[in-house]
Amino acid sequence: MTNAATFFKYKQLYKSELLENIIPFWEKHSIDRVNGGYFNCLDRDGSIYDRRKNVWLQGRQVWMFSRLYNTVEKRPEWLEIARLGAEFLKKHAIRPDRRVYFSVTETGAPLGMQRKIFSECFYVMAMAEYARASGEQRWMDEATLELEKIWQWSSDLTKVGRPSFAGEPAAQSLAIPMILLNLLEVVAGDNLKKYEAEARECIRRMLLHVHTDQETVFEMVAPDGAFIDTIEGRTLNPGHAIEAGWFLLHWAQYLNNPQLAETAQNMVRWSFARGWDKEHGGILYFLDSRGYSPSQLEWPMKLWWPHVEALYAHLLNYSVSKRADDWAAFEKTHEYTFKHFPDRTHGEWFGYLDREGKVSQRFKGGPYKGCFHIPRALWLCWRLFEKLEKV
Amino acid sequence: MTNAATFFKYKQLYKSELLENIIPFWEKHSIDRVNGGYFNCLDRDGSIYDRRKNVWLQGRQVWMFSRLYNTVEKRPEWLEIARLGAEFLKKHAIRPDRRVYFSVTETGAPLGMQRKIFSECFYVMAMAEYARASGEQRWMDEATLELEKIWQWSSDLTKVGRPSFAGEPAAQSLAIPMILLNLLEVVAGDNLKKYEAEARECIRRMLLHVHTDQETVFEMVAPDGAFIDTIEGRTLNPGHAIEAGWFLLHWAQYLNNPQLAETAQNMVRWSFARGWDKEHGGILYFLDSRGYSPSQLEWPMKLWWPHVEALYAHLLNYSVSKRADDWAAFEKTHEYTFKHFPDRTHGEWFGYLDREGKVSQRFKGGPYKGCFHIPRALWLCWRLFEKLEKV
Repeated sequence: MTNAATFFKYKQLYKSELLENIIPFWEKHSIDRVNGGYFNCLDRDGSIYDRRKNVWLQGRQVWMFSRLYNTVEKRPEWLEIARLGAEFLKKHAIRPDRRVYFSVTETGAPLGMQRKIFSECFYVMAMAEYARASGEQRWMDEATLELEKIWQWSSDLTKVGRPSFAGEPAAQSLAIPMILLNLLEVVAGDNLKKYEAEARECIRRMLLHVHTDQETVFEMVAPDGAFIDTIEGRTLNPGHAIEAGWFLLHWAQYLNNPQLAETAQNMVRWSFARGWDKEHGGILYFLDSRGYSPSQLEWPMKLWWPHVEALYAHLLNYSVSKRADDWAAFEKTHEYTFKHFPDRTHGEWFGYLDREGKVSQRFKGGPYKGCFHIPRALWLCWRLFEKLEKV
Repeated sequence: MTNAATFFKYKQLYKSELLENIIPFWEKHSIDRVNGGYFNCLDRDGSIYDRRKNVWLQGRQVWMFSRLYNTVEKRPEWLEIARLGAEFLKKHAIRPDRRVYFSVTETGAPLGMQRKIFSECFYVMAMAEYARASGEQRWMDEATLELEKIWQWSSDLTKVGRPSFAGEPAAQSLAIPMILLNLLEVVAGDNLKKYEAEARECIRRMLLHVHTDQETVFEMVAPDGAFIDTIEGRTLNPGHAIEAGWFLLHWAQYLNNPQLAETAQNMVRWSFARGWDKEHGGILYFLDSRGYSPSQLEWPMKLWWPHVEALYAHLLNYSVSKRADDWAAFEKTHEYTFKHFPDRTHGEWFGYLDREGKVSQRFKGGPYKGCFHIPRALWLCWRLFEKLEKV
């Protein structure tokens, strides 16, 4: 039933889940008012089980609270929380050479650095959105300066220390153009035009991963888009491809390109069809495109983020296509997600379930789970239901 | 029932499993007679699903076939298989600076390098045992030369490119002194005296990880052995600590040190007691010493290697202690292992089961599973049953 009443019901549910369950958990347990930044290793009940600060999650939480402040309500406490993270990052996470640490201690001493560019990307997200929240231009200058560095590094990861070996097949990873495309949207804000040329380049590279004849989105392909018949070349990450789909659909809408929009929608539909576990429900974490056992030991697990990304991706598809199967995919994902992930005892959601849907890790925050995918998806869906309701 | 008839029955079973199931699988499917070396990514039926060659597994397979040749039977085909691997490694796996690649292509072009010393260790195991099989001194020279390099690197991993960060707590990992201790045994052969001083240093470092008051073996501790209250400091890997136990017991026997032998036995007993899954049986992969959820997503899985290492560790304990509980632990592990891991359809054993004991990965060989833990444990147990039978 897709009518205004249905959309209203969902809108209320997503809004209250965001504002009454998810956000209060992080407000209550994560904020470090002594050192700045956020504790992100939070046990089921919110208690801290490790005091490290993972930079991906620091940057994402700054973005989230800034975004809430900018789009939901001008609550001073949200701005203050965002400020605590933004200043911590600016002070402790970035090196003079503009590389950003992966993790730091409670007080900001460096703990680790990846030979990747993702810490840098989440640093930029934080700076850009906090610039709009604080109204201070210097944060936007910091964001655009770092974005330029990332853009240079992204075409050649040896620049961030990734070694290169003679036997490696030339390859490119979906993760890079995909996160850059989203980053351009975040930094551009209302002025997407500013980064249109860069976005078109990201889109070109992303489309190499979409093999329409096989209805498959590959994580790694040759520079010309050809299939690579190795463990990595056959790896599918359905949740990741679904997230890439909605990143792309946002830009397809801006570019007013229906063919690109159709491809973006298909990325979501195909990846969902492949990734859905027909036996136990939920979206499998990894698959091998030729049906071999994935080498990732965690391949059959059900993680929070593919499910919440699929919620918004299906809903966005439906908002564009009005197709019944897109709506059905949304409802199927919604039912699984709301049945299995929320913790009605201690608040927030579990992140890691086994194949059968039982909780495998009880913590609410860890080195890779923080205040990001769930609140972002709830917020995006809420806003989209609001639009759908009014149509 | 621990009598000669029981030991005879087990001896026959372990011997036939080794010589009629495990070894024929690798003889039939893994050997690359064109390029040398071994294919190690083998699907359930032995077919190759990736042609890369992982150096850990190349080195371990050379060691295994050389060991069979040296101790079981002088089969020319075993020597030839060992030669194919040893020459491939010598030609392709080691760099002029003595670092050893983690993986190479089918033809030997470099694919990857870890900032660790394990590839180097398995290279040494291969060279040393093949030296004894071939009777050619140059392979032993290669082994001892590389062992010296590893010894230098092992005290400071920044020498192999591991970065160091200001916020990291000073820490040492059990894996390093443990593998070195085993390596000294392998290289020394019948002349353990040769490396006694080095072994005593490894033992000193290993004992820092054994916290007797808590009956716990920690993977990572401070340089003085103190507990580190972080995710890594609380990490337990019961199978790893069990393997460390028998490595240590071998040296305790040589050193004729009953107190050290008792500690080694307790490492096995305590880790088994902690790691055994009381709900579903089998040994859990990772635990947190304070009961938090481990951050390793695969923590509840049942892997082949902790189980086969436990088989030999319990049996070795029993051979020393003659305690009924050590024998019971062996039989408990034996029952679980032989019920769940062997594949009676296509041969060899599965490597990765979910918590409930269902096969999670169907392949027989992958980037971390090759011809090593299972045949080594079967061979060690077979030989020990032979001794027990004669007592």
